[in-house]
Amino acid sequence: MPVPTIEWEGGVDGRIRLIDQTLLPVEFKQIYCEDVESVWQAIRQLNVRGAPAIGCAAALGTVLGIQHSTAESFQDDLKKTTDYLATSRPTAVNLFWALDRMKRAAEADARRSLDELKEILLGEAKAIIEEDRAMCRRIGAHGATLIHDGATALTHCNAGGLATADYGTALACFFAAKEQGKTISVYADETRPLLQGSRLTAWELMQDGIDVTIICDSMAAQVMKEGRIDLVVVGADRIAANGDAANKIGTYGLAVLARHHGIPFYVAAPSSTFDLSLADGSAIPIEERPGDEITCGFGRRTAPLGVNTYNPAFDVTPAELIAAIITERGIIRPVNAANVAVMMG
Amino acid sequence: MPVPTIEWEGGVDGRIRLIDQTLLPVEFKQIYCEDVESVWQAIRQLNVRGAPAIGCAAALGTVLGIQHSTAESFQDDLKKTTDYLATSRPTAVNLFWALDRMKRAAEADARRSLDELKEILLGEAKAIIEEDRAMCRRIGAHGATLIHDGATALTHCNAGGLATADYGTALACFFAAKEQGKTISVYADETRPLLQGSRLTAWELMQDGIDVTIICDSMAAQVMKEGRIDLVVVGADRIAANGDAANKIGTYGLAVLARHHGIPFYVAAPSSTFDLSLADGSAIPIEERPGDEITCGFGRRTAPLGVNTYNPAFDVTPAELIAAIITERGIIRPVNAANVAVMMG
Repeated sequence: MPVPTIEWEGGVDGRIRLIDQTLLPVEFKQIYCEDVESVWQAIRQLNVRGAPAIGCAAALGTVLGIQHSTAESFQDDLKKTTDYLATSRPTAVNLFWALDRMKRAAEADARRSLDELKEILLGEAKAIIEEDRAMCRRIGAHGATLIHDGATALTHCNAGGLATADYGTALACFFAAKEQGKTISVYADETRPLLQGSRLTAWELMQDGIDVTIICDSMAAQVMKEGRIDLVVVGADRIAANGDAANKIGTYGLAVLARHHGIPFYVAAPSSTFDLSLADGSAIPIEERPGDEITCGFGRRTAPLGVNTYNPAFDVTPAELIAAIITERGIIRPVNAANVAVMMG
Repeated sequence: MPVPTIEWEGGVDGRIRLIDQTLLPVEFKQIYCEDVESVWQAIRQLNVRGAPAIGCAAALGTVLGIQHSTAESFQDDLKKTTDYLATSRPTAVNLFWALDRMKRAAEADARRSLDELKEILLGEAKAIIEEDRAMCRRIGAHGATLIHDGATALTHCNAGGLATADYGTALACFFAAKEQGKTISVYADETRPLLQGSRLTAWELMQDGIDVTIICDSMAAQVMKEGRIDLVVVGADRIAANGDAANKIGTYGLAVLARHHGIPFYVAAPSSTFDLSLADGSAIPIEERPGDEITCGFGRRTAPLGVNTYNPAFDVTPAELIAAIITERGIIRPVNAANVAVMMG
């Protein structure tokens, strides 16, 4: 990334700087968030997106919520802020995971002075980002072992540097493979409705000099049938205890197609994306977004006025369709509850 | 349809009127073609599209190519015109079928006077359109028997009134089911890159008062998994002797997904879409269209400059994934070379 996707500027009184991902690749613009509302909006409107990056944004947003607190208002402000940020998006569990970490950090040191508490929370948020950076590198190292020299991968949506604090989860596998001297090619699903694949993934891979070809989501089956794809790697927004994985809408269909064509289907995600409180994927909440993402997706109306739409933002891929989950701790393979428990225990 | 998708205005000296399908549903505009070049462009640029409608356009375009011929130039003009129109698009066999019919009509009556020959060719073109109308109705009648009251169908691209001279092939099944008093609902894949589903299919179904919901192509698997879909019906651009069927890109993947979810997958197409000279679908030529259909959908760039794209306009669904082919002659089921031969022989 030319600059980090999201970071904190200044001390406790500082602010968040993030790349506006809704404008890329046509425009590279940065956004500064100085209050909790603007962070909520940035998450909701997808200026910042991608499960790990949403976690980072929520952690830094929590600091904005308490930076002007008094000793009397601190606990109340912390609760209000974390409750509010938790309503920004429902599916990516990293959001709730980061908010929980921030609350626990404050509870663990509840007897400290106000100034110390504020420093502790800023420190915790920065630690989450630092850990995310290290996580990307380790996922990349593990994932690259699954990619042979000359391989062609297919990916969906954007699980790259823009979705994390460093160089991604799914895309980290490609970046790391290239760092190891392997020549790889990538097909990127454009990923309707918001085109994170053609706008963000293609941009990131081109910046790193990796050969990338954009296709429409509906072309993935044909590209597989033509024998062009050796493996599929995608990210995840929430993974249940049995390995069922929620990710951008279209992922589940891609997994079915990969199985049909005998192509291994991999999910790359950090431990913060696992939600072990859910036995399987059926309880993962699926965000439904406004229909105009479909009907006015290119800034221009492309459907009849008043038409019905259905716009689920995510789907859940059953564990049995996933060849392996690549985490920063290692590779879970085969994907089942026992192996998830061993790796995440 | 408010007006026929394509028709001839006037006598031998007349012209073609057609609905410009690139502007719908935002703008309803008609185009008049008075020479062969403009017909070629209208087919190439998808002002008129859909296999049966392309056949109609080619037949009428042939009349434009000979309407000013002299007795000396007639045969040469006819050959030049049909050769030229045959280069407009490669996949839909109805184009070549219609051009062959026009040539054969002229050959069969080669001793007639010039004026008679021109009238014969205009008559043949009008007959192709009339037969297409009747075909739509018969396909609808056969297809409706496969749709139960209360059913929800999924379709891809547009195989409706805009793709034919009457009310379609795949969509004819829905229109006919409704005429029989059945209540049906339809999910329409938006069908990237050119959005024939959200622009054209949704518009047609809404005009007829059929409940229609637009989804992105990548959502079809999820909609199937949620149990919303009872059957899939699509059109075709060319069907080989064994029943392998070429249709809009994304159809093949949809067939794989339907099979995975135990949902019957039907193809609706007239006999003019069968190419019995091809043993199977592997020899069907697949048109590759410009990458800017993907990167600049609807006038706005949504991908990095210079990115690679792959844009096949069609794919081939193997016969074994097709539960039945609905033709104007009856239903081919199961789909195999023997049953295709019986129905088309």
